[in-house]
Amino acid sequence: MADAPGDIEALIALMARLPGLGPRSARRAVLHLLRKRAVVMEPLAQALVKVAASARDCRICGNISDSDLCPICASPKRATGVLCVVEDVSDLWAMERASVFSGRYHVLGGTLSALDEIGPEALRIPQLVQRVGDEGIHEVVLALNATVDGQTTGHYIAEALARTAVQVSALAQGVPMGGELDYLDDGTISAALAARRRL
Amino acid sequence: MADAPGDIEALIALMARLPGLGPRSARRAVLHLLRKRAVVMEPLAQALVKVAASARDCRICGNISDSDLCPICASPKRATGVLCVVEDVSDLWAMERASVFSGRYHVLGGTLSALDEIGPEALRIPQLVQRVGDEGIHEVVLALNATVDGQTTGHYIAEALARTAVQVSALAQGVPMGGELDYLDDGTISAALAARRRL
Repeated sequence: MADAPGDIEALIALMARLPGLGPRSARRAVLHLLRKRAVVMEPLAQALVKVAASARDCRICGNISDSDLCPICASPKRATGVLCVVEDVSDLWAMERASVFSGRYHVLGGTLSALDEIGPEALRIPQLVQRVGDEGIHEVVLALNATVDGQTTGHYIAEALARTAVQVSALAQGVPMGGELDYLDDGTISAALAARRRL
Repeated sequence: MADAPGDIEALIALMARLPGLGPRSARRAVLHLLRKRAVVMEPLAQALVKVAASARDCRICGNISDSDLCPICASPKRATGVLCVVEDVSDLWAMERASVFSGRYHVLGGTLSALDEIGPEALRIPQLVQRVGDEGIHEVVLALNATVDGQTTGHYIAEALARTAVQVSALAQGVPMGGELDYLDDGTISAALAARRRL
């Protein structure tokens, strides 16, 4: 593009690499920023610089926060004894939004994948086994995505923990809230039927 | 959200204010940034800071660039004598992407609107009339959006320039490239028929 001067062009190219933004929407976003330089662009620039400088992975659970120990691991209010295993920080945030889990987390950072050469070490599974022993965990809840990769990883973790005394559980599968049978896939209906409960 | 720590939450809120991003996609974008701190987040933060500090409106045409005079107004290669009037910087960039106009621009910064109390002064129309005289312009091309507001503004400018000797033209209206009649609105077909040309 010879239309925007160098720095602005570079900014558009960087914005276009964000998920959900293509070249066209990145240009729109940058134009919006340029029009509202004082109100939107400067605060955003400062917020980005601040977070870029302070953000780091929690050394215990793998969550991202602005200190070595994330607020959840640092909180004395979070129940020790129960660990929730999630694939990614986004899943941890989703669990926290639901506000139903009061224990601590362990972020794997992905799923096992022979194709992408992602083994147990890359996923912090040895650290998980270590934590289960060190922290006196009595239950590990697998909150992994209901995908083939997620389930495979879940099975692997269950096996890795089989030697310990910890109880391993997984999120229930079934009909989602507000779900209509007509719109559900066969796999969900079959899982919901298999896991039916007495009323 | 109690899920992300303060600074990250603030960054998500700022990102969510960009056009094309909602709270959900802003969170995804920020998570992407957090995962690729060195490769994506830091360059983006630096680019934003740089542009926020340097971006300013061209004092002649109203284009946004990193200097007082935009590259187009500063270039000796751009034909003087022809001015293209656009509503917004995004329109100027769109014209430049097409690489078919070799003259200079005049950015109005919007359209006339009685409802929003936007009058000729707010749109830099007096400056346009001034430029036509000062720069010895012989043609003003109105490249305004084919909306009611755009066309109203066009008529106003044509009238304001009627006292001068300058020739005023406007982009042709008709069937767009690749357009199929079946999908076009009545207004476009009617404009295309009225402006039909001999072959």
